[in-house]
Amino acid sequence: MPQVRQDIITGRWVIIATERGKRPESFAQVPAQQALAERPPGPPDDCPFCPGHEGMTPPELLAYDGPFREPDTPGWKVRVVPNKYPALTAEGNLEPRPTGIYQQFDGVGFHEVIIHSPDHWRSLGELDREQVALFLEACRERYLERGRDSRVKYMHLIENHGRSAGASIEHPHSQLFGLPLVPPVLEDELAGMRRWSAEHGGCPVCAMLVEEDRAGERSVCESDHFFAFAPFASRVPFETWVVPREHCAHFPELPDDALEDLAGLLSHTMGRLHRGLNDPPYNLMLHSAPSDGGLYPEFHWHIEVWPKLSLPAGFEWGTGIMVNTALPEESAAFLREASEGPDPLLA
Amino acid sequence: MPQVRQDIITGRWVIIATERGKRPESFAQVPAQQALAERPPGPPDDCPFCPGHEGMTPPELLAYDGPFREPDTPGWKVRVVPNKYPALTAEGNLEPRPTGIYQQFDGVGFHEVIIHSPDHWRSLGELDREQVALFLEACRERYLERGRDSRVKYMHLIENHGRSAGASIEHPHSQLFGLPLVPPVLEDELAGMRRWSAEHGGCPVCAMLVEEDRAGERSVCESDHFFAFAPFASRVPFETWVVPREHCAHFPELPDDALEDLAGLLSHTMGRLHRGLNDPPYNLMLHSAPSDGGLYPEFHWHIEVWPKLSLPAGFEWGTGIMVNTALPEESAAFLREASEGPDPLLA
Repeated sequence: MPQVRQDIITGRWVIIATERGKRPESFAQVPAQQALAERPPGPPDDCPFCPGHEGMTPPELLAYDGPFREPDTPGWKVRVVPNKYPALTAEGNLEPRPTGIYQQFDGVGFHEVIIHSPDHWRSLGELDREQVALFLEACRERYLERGRDSRVKYMHLIENHGRSAGASIEHPHSQLFGLPLVPPVLEDELAGMRRWSAEHGGCPVCAMLVEEDRAGERSVCESDHFFAFAPFASRVPFETWVVPREHCAHFPELPDDALEDLAGLLSHTMGRLHRGLNDPPYNLMLHSAPSDGGLYPEFHWHIEVWPKLSLPAGFEWGTGIMVNTALPEESAAFLREASEGPDPLLA
Repeated sequence: MPQVRQDIITGRWVIIATERGKRPESFAQVPAQQALAERPPGPPDDCPFCPGHEGMTPPELLAYDGPFREPDTPGWKVRVVPNKYPALTAEGNLEPRPTGIYQQFDGVGFHEVIIHSPDHWRSLGELDREQVALFLEACRERYLERGRDSRVKYMHLIENHGRSAGASIEHPHSQLFGLPLVPPVLEDELAGMRRWSAEHGGCPVCAMLVEEDRAGERSVCESDHFFAFAPFASRVPFETWVVPREHCAHFPELPDDALEDLAGLLSHTMGRLHRGLNDPPYNLMLHSAPSDGGLYPEFHWHIEVWPKLSLPAGFEWGTGIMVNTALPEESAAFLREASEGPDPLLA
């Protein structure tokens, strides 16, 4: 029988309808061996994110490299560049302008690309812990740098992995957006966390950490500072959250030791998804408190990974309620068992 | 430069970033001739919605047919059956049950399928006006019939057309869902329409009709009782709304003459999408007031068509803000010009 489950942060409902679905293993992609066989011997000539092709991107904003390297040349380990086709741009006017009975303003903000590593083929789940730590350090540095722009009210970090998850360039990369407003998803989470605090005291994400630790059936993996689990009200098959154990609103405040720890756990979590489901397409999203100068003590930052294994359609767009065809407890059990093979956390 | 536009009903923002996009014609699918050539000579043997295969569905709930026809046999013009894999079912308990710190209840409701016509190949934009009228009549009849169930708080009618828009069966059909709650998208629209009424008097959809008539640049086509246009704050390329000119909350109250008129306009609108973009995948959604016994005098029912020509990804899921790579004014102009060929409205 389908179940309707409620997210305790926002109050939103999700329908878990597994009768329409299938066993966890049937969500896996074409076997990875086949995908590997399709790879050309070297990196593609036309990839703008590969070493040697630095001239194909706008001038770099940041690179982690060795000494004596010239900007926009090979030799980098992580590289950050402006997006060539930005969804939000530095120029423009934030004053709303009427158009008939409607309103619009210029899309002021920024849109940049963080190239995970020089390796065209290794996804986040295949990188070693050291490289993931460099990537996270670059994210933190860009958050801190861009946070000085008072026009930016919210920063959104995402990775779209795989063509069907919206990645137009194959070389693994994330995107950092600066928005001139706090978006609805964050407004809902902020309101929900405030409501929980007023009604129960504390924070709903902290309560979830205690509950998931106790229940165990939705846990995926854990470390000293972080916990990865399938949320009770998962919206898509294999939805996985990576949550800091310590309550904190702002991702860029992450201290070095916790960043190192996150690098291991993220690599471990993404590795399980990668190995268990054969490199599935996914959207990874970092939810941090707004960067508009507020403290937001009620907010608990976290990472959400949404594998792209289903097609939201007329029901979901028209109602705002997701239908998930996988039981979160089964998905989590499957990922817990998907630890075979090289394990970056233990390597 | 990207623009941020606001929907006047809900207040939500959308980013129109055409620099990332392309000309209207480049959104078209593989030419229809090619798709036609791929069609086998007759309907597929395994289609559960084709005449002669009535035994492959659960027993029918409604059929429009001639005299002397036995149920679940050929000879029907429109046929309604329960969904074989329902997302919501008749049995169950609506009492929320705690699961640890969370809540869930049974997915009580209904989920049925309205088969548009016996023709496996003709989509909504290719059916004649008479057949579309029969389809709409069946929708209205099911809304009225199911509206008597007091456990159903909201009914949602959709068509998912094309595999990439979530259609698992090719034969054109719509789905009617009965939900045990009023979903968030409707709550937002209701709240927005109430807010508009309090601030400006009247209804924002009525105001849009006046504005779109005046501006003209976003209109697609019109009839005595209905108006089809691209909304100012379109969320996806070629988003098109079909709106009754007369303010009315509840779709099933549509009188016969307006239903006939809607059949022509819907056929005309979907025909333009079909011909202009070569049978694009799409989600069609009917937004009607809740069926929980309330009157909802502020609500204005309407149909939204979202062609599936883009991939919402990490930005959209994580922020709740859609990035639309097509300018609504250009999309509407393209559809206005796409009137070549047989025109069901004039036929």
